[in-house]
Amino acid sequence: QCLLSGSWRSDTGCRMVVSTLDKDNRFSGFYLPGPAAGNSELLTSPLEGSQQDTWLVPQPTFYFTVNWRLREVARTTVFLGQCYVDTNGEETLHALWLLREVADSPDEDWKATRIGTSIFTRIK
Amino acid sequence: QCLLSGSWRSDTGCRMVVSTLDKDNRFSGFYLPGPAAGNSELLTSPLEGSQQDTWLVPQPTFYFTVNWRLREVARTTVFLGQCYVDTNGEETLHALWLLREVADSPDEDWKATRIGTSIFTRIK
Amino acid sequence: QCLLSGSWRSDTGCRMVVSTLDKDNRFSGFYLPGPAAGNSELLTSPLEGSQQDTWLVPQPTFYFTVNWRLREVARTTVFLGQCYVDTNGEETLHALWLLREVADSPDEDWKATRIGTSIFTRIK
Amino acid sequence: QCLLSGSWRSDTGCRMVVSTLDKDNRFSGFYLPGPAAGNSELLTSPLEGSQQDTWLVPQPTFYFTVNWRLREVARTTVFLGQCYVDTNGEETLHALWLLREVADSPDEDWKATRIGTSIFTRIK
Repeated sequence: QCLLSGSWRSDTGCRMVVSTLDKDNRFSGFYLPGPAAGNSELLTSPLEGSQQDTWLVPQPTFYFTVNWRLREVARTTVFLGQCYVDTNGEETLHALWLLREVADSPDEDWKATRIGTSIFTRIK
Repeated sequence: QCLLSGSWRSDTGCRMVVSTLDKDNRFSGFYLPGPAAGNSELLTSPLEGSQQDTWLVPQPTFYFTVNWRLREVARTTVFLGQCYVDTNGEETLHALWLLREVADSPDEDWKATRIGTSIFTRIK
Repeated sequence: QCLLSGSWRSDTGCRMVVSTLDKDNRFSGFYLPGPAAGNSELLTSPLEGSQQDTWLVPQPTFYFTVNWRLREVARTTVFLGQCYVDTNGEETLHALWLLREVADSPDEDWKATRIGTSIFTRIK
Repeated sequence: QCLLSGSWRSDTGCRMVVSTLDKDNRFSGFYLPGPAAGNSELLTSPLEGSQQDTWLVPQPTFYFTVNWRLREVARTTVFLGQCYVDTNGEETLHALWLLREVADSPDEDWKATRIGTSIFTRIK
């Protein structure tokens, strides 16, 4: 349990599909925008990351990065979080994320980064 | 310019050494605690990440992760930032970071994450 | 609707009680730790803040500050968020917060701030 | 020392002017955009906040809020930080901030908040 492999849905309606882990606990996958993205410019985008070994910690921390495939600008999100298992065996991912756009200069850097949280549950 | 390879010093006195980039613009390296860490439990810790291709963008965004080697608890930091070059050719890395500890349960999750910024300049 | 006055419960089980607004849309109140705080050092703590005028915006933004009454160290949280009303008239507060402890010196400043989100619903 | 009253310049070239503190350690003032704002829509905007009592702590924490006067949208920034004094008596303010725009619905809330840091030094 608490291997990130599989399909997940976020509290904002996004979905992600995560590969099986390699021997170093790395994974790749895809992030799909939710209905909120509507007619937006967001497309299915690749993700990659890694997690702690579940032999060492039953509720491992993880991180992953999404490189957004957008029509115009380059954006990257990093997620940092932890997988929790409740007494029924249900897994939940709690994560904070930073989303960054390209800025033109250090003077413009201050407005480049957004922040938020996401909670993911497994799609069965 | 604005390849992350090489040695960098942060505004808080930490240092990092970054490998040459592979063909996918990935890198690895080490993060060394600064004098502020003093007699702390921080040890030299491995990092890995990737950056945008400098053929595409002269001031690329980057991210990297540090898995802290600590005596007791597991901590992970993700950095997300951008490399800027000024008119003298000096490179500066501006980054926001999230630092996460392991929490025992979702009830404890709220206090697991710290946030801050770092500015790095090249060590010559 | 979307006056913050009244009693609210957060998604982490905390409660807050907010006064009626004064003519400048300011309020005061109290923040009460949830069950997760358990046998912790958190006590009921005063809050104060303000919100946008609901005559101007039906889903106003707001901020408030909690000065934690703790047995040992001084901590402050600032919440910044927005009140949303759904089609059933149910109000929900979405907020990001920063929690800061006192640091001894600028060298220690990097680790002083935690971040997270809270969602509040009205207690009826 | 470390009363916020007076004039300050941020590392991004913004300025702020802070009133004398009232008996509850509250202050008001104005925030002025820097050269980076250039021909932007930012105007001088009112701020208000409070700080810890310097009788209790020599390096007090503080917070303040800026309600941006913009031509179009409503934005609010909250700053949360600490005043440090070095051995020469020079004061520096280290702060993290959250900047929020109004969102149309909870579905749009995820992108409403930016984050960053500011360092202020006194204008003499």
